[in-house]
Amino acid sequence: MKVYINGNWKEEKTATISINNPGFTSARVVYETIRTYKGQLFKFKRHLERLKNSADAMKIELKNNLKEIEEIIKEGIGINGLDEAYIRIYLTSNPDLIIQIKNFPVIDPNIYKMGILTDISEIRRQAFMHNKTAIKTTAALDVFLARIKKPEQLYDYIMLNREGYVAEGTFSNVFAVKKGVLITPNMETGILSGITREVVIELSEKCQIHCQQRLVEEKELFESDELFLTHTSGGIVPVRALGKKKFNRGKITTRLMASLQAFTGEKK
Amino acid sequence: MKVYINGNWKEEKTATISINNPGFTSARVVYETIRTYKGQLFKFKRHLERLKNSADAMKIELKNNLKEIEEIIKEGIGINGLDEAYIRIYLTSNPDLIIQIKNFPVIDPNIYKMGILTDISEIRRQAFMHNKTAIKTTAALDVFLARIKKPEQLYDYIMLNREGYVAEGTFSNVFAVKKGVLITPNMETGILSGITREVVIELSEKCQIHCQQRLVEEKELFESDELFLTHTSGGIVPVRALGKKKFNRGKITTRLMASLQAFTGEKK
Amino acid sequence: MKVYINGNWKEEKTATISINNPGFTSARVVYETIRTYKGQLFKFKRHLERLKNSADAMKIELKNNLKEIEEIIKEGIGINGLDEAYIRIYLTSNPDLIIQIKNFPVIDPNIYKMGILTDISEIRRQAFMHNKTAIKTTAALDVFLARIKKPEQLYDYIMLNREGYVAEGTFSNVFAVKKGVLITPNMETGILSGITREVVIELSEKCQIHCQQRLVEEKELFESDELFLTHTSGGIVPVRALGKKKFNRGKITTRLMASLQAFTGEKK
Amino acid sequence: MKVYINGNWKEEKTATISINNPGFTSARVVYETIRTYKGQLFKFKRHLERLKNSADAMKIELKNNLKEIEEIIKEGIGINGLDEAYIRIYLTSNPDLIIQIKNFPVIDPNIYKMGILTDISEIRRQAFMHNKTAIKTTAALDVFLARIKKPEQLYDYIMLNREGYVAEGTFSNVFAVKKGVLITPNMETGILSGITREVVIELSEKCQIHCQQRLVEEKELFESDELFLTHTSGGIVPVRALGKKKFNRGKITTRLMASLQAFTGEKK
Repeated sequence: MKVYINGNWKEEKTATISINNPGFTSARVVYETIRTYKGQLFKFKRHLERLKNSADAMKIELKNNLKEIEEIIKEGIGINGLDEAYIRIYLTSNPDLIIQIKNFPVIDPNIYKMGILTDISEIRRQAFMHNKTAIKTTAALDVFLARIKKPEQLYDYIMLNREGYVAEGTFSNVFAVKKGVLITPNMETGILSGITREVVIELSEKCQIHCQQRLVEEKELFESDELFLTHTSGGIVPVRALGKKKFNRGKITTRLMASLQAFTGEKK
Repeated sequence: MKVYINGNWKEEKTATISINNPGFTSARVVYETIRTYKGQLFKFKRHLERLKNSADAMKIELKNNLKEIEEIIKEGIGINGLDEAYIRIYLTSNPDLIIQIKNFPVIDPNIYKMGILTDISEIRRQAFMHNKTAIKTTAALDVFLARIKKPEQLYDYIMLNREGYVAEGTFSNVFAVKKGVLITPNMETGILSGITREVVIELSEKCQIHCQQRLVEEKELFESDELFLTHTSGGIVPVRALGKKKFNRGKITTRLMASLQAFTGEKK
Repeated sequence: MKVYINGNWKEEKTATISINNPGFTSARVVYETIRTYKGQLFKFKRHLERLKNSADAMKIELKNNLKEIEEIIKEGIGINGLDEAYIRIYLTSNPDLIIQIKNFPVIDPNIYKMGILTDISEIRRQAFMHNKTAIKTTAALDVFLARIKKPEQLYDYIMLNREGYVAEGTFSNVFAVKKGVLITPNMETGILSGITREVVIELSEKCQIHCQQRLVEEKELFESDELFLTHTSGGIVPVRALGKKKFNRGKITTRLMASLQAFTGEKK
Repeated sequence: MKVYINGNWKEEKTATISINNPGFTSARVVYETIRTYKGQLFKFKRHLERLKNSADAMKIELKNNLKEIEEIIKEGIGINGLDEAYIRIYLTSNPDLIIQIKNFPVIDPNIYKMGILTDISEIRRQAFMHNKTAIKTTAALDVFLARIKKPEQLYDYIMLNREGYVAEGTFSNVFAVKKGVLITPNMETGILSGITREVVIELSEKCQIHCQQRLVEEKELFESDELFLTHTSGGIVPVRALGKKKFNRGKITTRLMASLQAFTGEKK
């Protein structure tokens, strides 16, 4: 597997950065995780916009334009001989542009059939309250601590914000369904705007499912009829259990999964 | 200058880490900044304790004991031919142990005579409220954002905590003097326990200066008689101005500076 | 029924205060609710201490001492011809001392056999974070709003604090039992120190039940084995349902109820 | 002086409410303070709207309409033989409607010439964060505590909100002027919408003074060029000192004072 570092393709195993790279010495690094569906980059423009926003907020200059980065990724997919790709872009403050392009991981189909396990982390999401622009950076101690405390059997941990409202998973967004209504934390909660979350909200409209973006109480998760997580590589992932509370994969989750599959072209 | 990486001494300019080092990919890295006074490591044991605490909290294993790390540092001081050293220890979750040992920087003596400029940052310190153990990690977006917004002429920016109480500088701790009493934010404010801060509190007791560790209102800084910052490389640094508010270097600051110099052996 | 107002016993129906009483014009009033068990005042000294604390915090002078107030109450129990009494003391900033002494209400025994219904209120308890002394005053808009939004069928509403941790009911304290351990929010949560809560904590020690006073996550209530509320007039009140989550009256609740009955002398 | 209670005019000295009035027993009472200028009710409709909002939020029914309340007030001004009136309306949950109509107090003209003293209270405004409707009720323990801690010489105490941003005085709103720009805390800060504050914002537009409604840092008050408070009975009140920080009455304050006087008809 080859990785792109500032214009060169290097073997990933031996690819390195300086120990003085600010991405290492002071977490001055923003990133995006992108995937392909049927070989096509998914919502690439939106991911690049968000990368630009994050970079601006941390005063990191993004020198390459969308077209150039798209070309690099396509080149990498070719060089690495991939069908379906999982891409990670790091931009550090040198600036260094690092793009990892890997085989898209095989996802156990059971997680879609059976649903996954999740729970509420005791670590609160310490997001900024008055910061309009979310910043996707590695410098998120709260998310990190939740991750390392996560029990093995859990797919992801759901974090509350510092006022105790449902925020987001450590790498996913949260959706609940109650009495036919789709409910998801709004941006005021202090979450990152997940691309898959945005797509699901758009698809819910097409499916004529009413979607509420608002403050969500923890208790609402325990009293919802359906629960699912969303993230780039997994899409919509139904929840089988939140702690001790069991869920069945419900109708609305199933409908949105089908709708997302149609949208991404995964299935016809 | 040579830098220590996992048992080897490498030229700093070419020293690298893998692009997959978790310290880079997910800010899983803790660190300490240590200095020598007259060639002797200052409060080394306390720094190592704190490194151990930070590492434990982030589930990073510190494989070397105090003695071993001390030996590495001494070896590095010799290899790099230094009189006075500035040391940075990084511990990442591989685990990789990286120790940078540099010449202690020349500090402009004017900052002690004239005092420095500081101000209140609009970025709030988002520290955990119920976390007993402070974690010294690069993953501190709040500190990072305050740093990049800091105007050039300021020595450091003072941050408030998320309830608006005085917390700490981006690399320093804050002390005010009012009517002969030394005042500094307590740990409940959500700050890191700076080693120099701890030393100054101990020295104040010896100097029979009453020191209050408590919640400090922002307005108290504007109404104090003296103000100073503390940090490892600078020691006690008097403040000449907080925004538009001017300060003279006061008696208590001067006494504590003398006391610290005596303690560190800088002057007899 | 006669009520005590500043040295006089008046018919409750016609007893009045000035429209300029600060307890009315600016909620400058503290109060206590006390009961008798078998005709004896329960934890009277502790209630008076708390009344004194509340009054001090609001700069209201309590002119009568414990003995005098006890005498007034005993006199009132006689005047009103009561066996078991429910007493409310108001102290306003004139100061006016008003003591209502009523027949202790008949409590439906079913609430102890079957348990009661409760739920989580969406109104957060806005308690002061750094205020050591809790103040029992009518001036608590949060508690008031939770009360008026409480559905009829609920016995009491449980409030979270402003960080989303379990705080207290609008007139009760909350205890959960999980795996044999008694769990109740600690004072740092920003709650009032309920007298019955204090008694239950003491009794748990005698019963060798381990009791944790700490921050309690909302999810812990949904995952506990037993749940009960405590308050002056009701004692220990088992919970049958928290929202949709059902509970059986458990062993530890039953043991503590028996222990409280023995302590209060209600049953031999 | 006569006071209106539920249809009757009673002597204020002997006017009473029941000790069981919920406004006394549980602070279930909302209120408004209104004044006349040249005998005319000032912004009466806006005050009534706010009373209605407060009452709705506390589920208190306001049975009289605007016209009826206006008639009662006019009748009271006549009965009490007043030129300029200070009116307080209380609405409690019985519901009881109480209207006090007094002589408008003589205000020392020096407060306008010389300015008043104020300072920052250590008591934080604990306002609800997600409550769109502000509620003007006596049940505000934070405001009450700030008031009783206020030193005699201060006209009013300025409170910060619980994140440390400037909120409001205990009975006034806060305006700062910096480099020709008028700055005042926005509603998101968690303040009550003072009627005089609203009028001043409208007048600033007419005077072509740019007015920013936003989060205001405490330090901005200490670094502003002019500072003034606004409230119903005082109008615009210039600040001479905020703690130790001195202010001169500035041009913009003077212009807005003139504009308000013209608007209210106080001076031609």
